[in-house]
Amino acid sequence: MKVAFQGVRGAYSEVAARHLFGKRCATLPCGEFAAVFTSVEKRRADRGIIPIENSLAGSIHQNYDLLLEHKLHIVGEVHLRIEHALMCSSKSSLRNISVVRSHPQALAQCAAFFRKHKRLKPEAFFDTAGAAQSVAESDDETVAAIASKEAARLYGLKILKRNLESKSHNFTRFLVVGRSPVRLRPSDNTKCSIVFSPKTNKTGILFTILGVFAVRGIDLLKVESRPDPKSPFQYLFYLDLQGNPADPDIREAFMQVRELTRMFRVLGAYPMGKGNFYGARP
Amino acid sequence: MKVAFQGVRGAYSEVAARHLFGKRCATLPCGEFAAVFTSVEKRRADRGIIPIENSLAGSIHQNYDLLLEHKLHIVGEVHLRIEHALMCSSKSSLRNISVVRSHPQALAQCAAFFRKHKRLKPEAFFDTAGAAQSVAESDDETVAAIASKEAARLYGLKILKRNLESKSHNFTRFLVVGRSPVRLRPSDNTKCSIVFSPKTNKTGILFTILGVFAVRGIDLLKVESRPDPKSPFQYLFYLDLQGNPADPDIREAFMQVRELTRMFRVLGAYPMGKGNFYGARP
Repeated sequence: MKVAFQGVRGAYSEVAARHLFGKRCATLPCGEFAAVFTSVEKRRADRGIIPIENSLAGSIHQNYDLLLEHKLHIVGEVHLRIEHALMCSSKSSLRNISVVRSHPQALAQCAAFFRKHKRLKPEAFFDTAGAAQSVAESDDETVAAIASKEAARLYGLKILKRNLESKSHNFTRFLVVGRSPVRLRPSDNTKCSIVFSPKTNKTGILFTILGVFAVRGIDLLKVESRPDPKSPFQYLFYLDLQGNPADPDIREAFMQVRELTRMFRVLGAYPMGKGNFYGARP
Repeated sequence: MKVAFQGVRGAYSEVAARHLFGKRCATLPCGEFAAVFTSVEKRRADRGIIPIENSLAGSIHQNYDLLLEHKLHIVGEVHLRIEHALMCSSKSSLRNISVVRSHPQALAQCAAFFRKHKRLKPEAFFDTAGAAQSVAESDDETVAAIASKEAARLYGLKILKRNLESKSHNFTRFLVVGRSPVRLRPSDNTKCSIVFSPKTNKTGILFTILGVFAVRGIDLLKVESRPDPKSPFQYLFYLDLQGNPADPDIREAFMQVRELTRMFRVLGAYPMGKGNFYGARP
């Protein structure tokens, strides 16, 4: 089993892959998100893993776009708490460092830490794991990085401080994609992700569509609307719901929704990931 | 009229403020988003402007959190097409440059440009306008920046290329906040943003709530669910709808929704911004 991810080794996406597939699973770093999809399509990897939403930053629309552009299936999900660690070379220490490298978003998430340590100058870098790698490759003992503790281990860096993030409810949900749908067991707590665009813009069309699920007692886990980037005046809706498309209720609901939409796609049905955001329902 | 924004001068937020309030409006740069809110609360500025959603990156949950933490009102919105320009000092040229600085997200949005110009090395920076400023302050003629054309003018840089972004449907929606609600005119096309958390997790609760709007023919412009970071097993819903809270229909609907929710807040009612994403409905 080989899993493609975007970023350099030690990236949070790779950490998420190892959470799901075990510490020894083979991984394939990719430069861009689109390359994660093509790596799976061209059989250079068996699975791809992509971040789809973060509890502070929101849904990542561009990865929803890639799910629509490519013909892969969602086969799993994993929720990862993002824990930023401060790390430096084994020869250095908190006293020696003066510059801290990381992705601007990670640096912003550690704003309280920098307010407390005014001496430390944040420095922007492309990604968290890349910052860790650059510190490992440098001889400069004044430079540190903020990244995952896994990146510290991978690049042989010493962790100076853990949980630098100002807000603890920083979770990212990752989706796993594969070339064919996952075989679900009856015992699985199954989740299903769909995307659709209603046929009309009439007031209450979303209400009508949600009614199709409500009357069957189907639980919705996520609802999101978004203007369709490719069709002005049209909306895209993302829905996650509880259940298996093989269930008669869900099959019936999908048939009805298809009639109300000009585009409808089941992105995948997969076992619900443990460690849902904040332990949220269902 | 003074408008607080996050970032350095020339940031897209400042560009959006000038779109709405005119080229000569006074602006106040802030280091963090929270400082935009406190600047308005403490009367250092009359208005604040914050990005709330981007067509590629999605809703910015942390700014929704700030709207809930602070007691300001949304008083307006503006949609800005994000157009990245390549800029260098007036003495330099496309041939001379070898390094291009910008925010990692902006650099990623220009991936097609970098694939075409393999000679150019992207370099991460905190923000786009800050990258432009650093190029202006440097003597190094090999360094360029990717930022707004307004940043180029502000820092006296020469624009080498416009519209570097790979995808043209890159829009950001900004909200304007103030200390008191805006006075709406009957001729305004009014939009209203609300946040609520349902009283129960029962299947179909969102359906029931949306029904309150649907039976009154109230148009929904945005629907988004999100696990509540502060209350495990609870959801937050963001809704934008067309209409004025003073309309009897909307007032009635809000009264009914209040009874179905444990938290309900009208974030603001304001004139709908022109240049909606992709010219989307209503």
